[in-house]
Amino acid sequence: MSAENLILRQIGIDTYHENVAYMHRDCEVYRAEGFQALSKIAICINQHHILAVLNVVDDRSIVTPGELGLSLQAFKQLNGEPGSAVSIEHAEPPISMDAVRRKINGERLSFNDFMAISQDIVKSRYSKMEMAAFLVASGQTGLDRDEILYLTRAMLQSGEILDWKESLVVDKHCIGGIPGNRTSMLLVPIVAAHGMLIPKTSSRAITSPSGTADTMEILSQVNLDPLKLNEIIHQERGCLAWGGTAKLAPVDDKLISVERPLGIDSKGQMVASILSKKLAAGSNHLLIDIPVGPTAKVRHMREALALRKLFEFVGDRLNIHLEVVITDGRQPIGCGIGPVLEVRDVLQVLENDPDAPTDLRQKSLQLAGRIIEFDPDVRGGQGYAIARDILDSGRAMAKMNAIIEAQGKKEDYSLKPGELFFEVFADKSGVVTQIDNFKLAHIARIAGAPMDKRSGVDLLKKLGESVTEGEPLYRVHAEFEADFQFAEKLCAQDCGYQIGDEKDIPKSFVAF
Amino acid sequence: MSAENLILRQIGIDTYHENVAYMHRDCEVYRAEGFQALSKIAICINQHHILAVLNVVDDRSIVTPGELGLSLQAFKQLNGEPGSAVSIEHAEPPISMDAVRRKINGERLSFNDFMAISQDIVKSRYSKMEMAAFLVASGQTGLDRDEILYLTRAMLQSGEILDWKESLVVDKHCIGGIPGNRTSMLLVPIVAAHGMLIPKTSSRAITSPSGTADTMEILSQVNLDPLKLNEIIHQERGCLAWGGTAKLAPVDDKLISVERPLGIDSKGQMVASILSKKLAAGSNHLLIDIPVGPTAKVRHMREALALRKLFEFVGDRLNIHLEVVITDGRQPIGCGIGPVLEVRDVLQVLENDPDAPTDLRQKSLQLAGRIIEFDPDVRGGQGYAIARDILDSGRAMAKMNAIIEAQGKKEDYSLKPGELFFEVFADKSGVVTQIDNFKLAHIARIAGAPMDKRSGVDLLKKLGESVTEGEPLYRVHAEFEADFQFAEKLCAQDCGYQIGDEKDIPKSFVAF
Repeated sequence: MSAENLILRQIGIDTYHENVAYMHRDCEVYRAEGFQALSKIAICINQHHILAVLNVVDDRSIVTPGELGLSLQAFKQLNGEPGSAVSIEHAEPPISMDAVRRKINGERLSFNDFMAISQDIVKSRYSKMEMAAFLVASGQTGLDRDEILYLTRAMLQSGEILDWKESLVVDKHCIGGIPGNRTSMLLVPIVAAHGMLIPKTSSRAITSPSGTADTMEILSQVNLDPLKLNEIIHQERGCLAWGGTAKLAPVDDKLISVERPLGIDSKGQMVASILSKKLAAGSNHLLIDIPVGPTAKVRHMREALALRKLFEFVGDRLNIHLEVVITDGRQPIGCGIGPVLEVRDVLQVLENDPDAPTDLRQKSLQLAGRIIEFDPDVRGGQGYAIARDILDSGRAMAKMNAIIEAQGKKEDYSLKPGELFFEVFADKSGVVTQIDNFKLAHIARIAGAPMDKRSGVDLLKKLGESVTEGEPLYRVHAEFEADFQFAEKLCAQDCGYQIGDEKDIPKSFVAF
Repeated sequence: MSAENLILRQIGIDTYHENVAYMHRDCEVYRAEGFQALSKIAICINQHHILAVLNVVDDRSIVTPGELGLSLQAFKQLNGEPGSAVSIEHAEPPISMDAVRRKINGERLSFNDFMAISQDIVKSRYSKMEMAAFLVASGQTGLDRDEILYLTRAMLQSGEILDWKESLVVDKHCIGGIPGNRTSMLLVPIVAAHGMLIPKTSSRAITSPSGTADTMEILSQVNLDPLKLNEIIHQERGCLAWGGTAKLAPVDDKLISVERPLGIDSKGQMVASILSKKLAAGSNHLLIDIPVGPTAKVRHMREALALRKLFEFVGDRLNIHLEVVITDGRQPIGCGIGPVLEVRDVLQVLENDPDAPTDLRQKSLQLAGRIIEFDPDVRGGQGYAIARDILDSGRAMAKMNAIIEAQGKKEDYSLKPGELFFEVFADKSGVVTQIDNFKLAHIARIAGAPMDKRSGVDLLKKLGESVTEGEPLYRVHAEFEADFQFAEKLCAQDCGYQIGDEKDIPKSFVAF
């Protein structure tokens, strides 16, 4: 079939988690339009092939009729030299789409079905719309507990699984939705200073204003190659690095890239996503934080309890010791939202600064205390005191500095927030009765966080505090004029705060 | 905000039913990567804006940091001059995605919900994955009868609605899945020759080897502007043109571009799709053909009956007189599959050639007869005889020639199938007990149909015919070497025929 070949070319277009191939409309070998409606083609080089969505090109400066172009991701995945000969074929839809169609029809899927789906997704055989079909189908009729277990196991097996060869490898995960909630940057140094192994890798923000990795990046490198990361963890007993370089449960990243923009959220997917990642990272003891509040992801105690049971069911069957804590999710944690502002809060807590946000300090100590109690030598109920002692004595700060040094310290970072800023003022006097997590996160995001590290929101008033009319509630920082204007427009629509009477403050249902 | 502007540029990439915008990674005004994860942006010019998916570009020859590129479709939709200043904004997900999320959670949607979804889709505010989410959600828990009615009405109102100002405007639709089934090209001239108004517009193939428009295109122009089409219909009482130039139920075309490649098929969507298109075309009498057979879309009589009730329920409430016929869908109709081969069959029937495929002739006469009985002057049961008389007398051929002339006759077409061909042989003696509609369509498609007009499959044996070992079952024609090889490979896997004993032939449940 040597006559059937096209010349491979890399096209400098980043198509974000979807493989795209570019073929000229007058392609010399294949009928471009005939392939297009089928929506996917297989591109083959030697014995290797990848699947891609086809775009037809009319501009010879992008591809010529004798060439086949691939977007950056697709080119990397095919792993061929530019100028090599490639052939293309009609791509059959991935075989596991049959299982997705059965799920759409309400059928219960087997472990083998989930394995097949997971493998096809990892190998980029699913288009985004196929992934959307899978996510919606498994969110709608819902996955039962066993299906969630199967899915978790299939996702876990989609990539590498680390083995630390220790009986006590701990980790913590928050289900998210609370801006400013940077407890990991406090509890990792505390727990590691206690001597427990906490190989925590963190995510970058997808739709939130900052992930732990985005915030940590102010202080040190976070993109570390797996070998280097391994060395740091052995040396320091903990790390605060980005998890994307390790190939842990890679199917999860692909599903998240569809799930987040769609704004769909299924409990089954969430449990499978969290547990597969943590198990792949080699943890055997895990603390899950479920914040509950009127604008949190989980809005009612009964919902939090149902979610807890689900985590316990799957965790127990996959040999991870798992505990769930339900925390106060009524408002953002700390004052800063956005990388630089969050670093400021974290450093204040580590430095025992009297101005440090109390809620961030308290929550981090509570969570660290629970993790420390995974240690068989620690008496139940003593964890908090141990964590506090580590923090107050400066040992947490020392451990944080050691981790920063090990990961690669950023020498001349600045904690100065973005120069463009405006304040949002109370429109009446009273007490703050609501701070909408979702809206504040959205404002910080629109102001530029996390891409613009110095952008974000700085809360000046928290729940229950008294304000007088005209007093500033929070300050929005941006680095770019366009973002500044976007954020101003958004705040004018709805600032996310409510001022009212003491009795209107929603109750916290949570006791640690 | 004049400082915030980018220079508009058209990018010669055809992104097929999805708007794509291209921004350089080092864009001078906006942070390209910050926008990317959100997956959609709004591009604004004057007061007008469109939504698009963002691709980040690293190649300045495609877009420079001061430019914003748009794919062909998006550029056309924005309707701005190249070089104009455009600004971009964060695009909120379309508001109606809330309704889609409610549907995912099993809620019943209102007419207003469907209207909002339909409007947002028509205005290209939905990405493909959002459309997939809507389709799966409304396929899975299913739409109830009233929801299907609402959806049909919303789709109908998404575009123009024709009014022929006659009390008897007839049309016919087959739910599809049977290759070679070109009855429209016979019944339109028959019915029009009877004097009834049949403004039938046809579709092009999306995943099938030929649509009526693809086949008719051999004989005449089919891309006619709406004014011209109108004139032809008034003059000839019928037409055989492509429906895509009229803006009838445009939301349907967008949904189909996602539904077909996903291979999901929901009854509710199908009913809404067919009826909204026919109502928009101004029909008030409609014959629906539901073929039933083991490899047809509808595999059981009970399923066909349920579908009939659904058509009747929605049709009655939208003031269209609708009848459903259930036909024999056990095998392809006629012998040819693919544009040129199908034209040959159709012309043989019109010319009363004794070699004409009997099943195509009979089915067309039956359907035409039923339509003719919509005429109040025709006695029940007389339609078939009238239709046969029109065909046998040559009046159907004359009408077909008049329609061809009116649409714009192709002067020197050839009915010679593709020069590259191979035959598939019986591997044993016996009778043909199965011809798989799906497989044969797939083979014809892979051989190049409908893009390559002379490609396709020519059936030499039909159901129930005796064959001896080594006798040819069918011939596959291709125009291009690559397609020829794809088709050969596919036939080697499974040729789609089964040879066995007379008693193994599946029964037809159908009596007209």
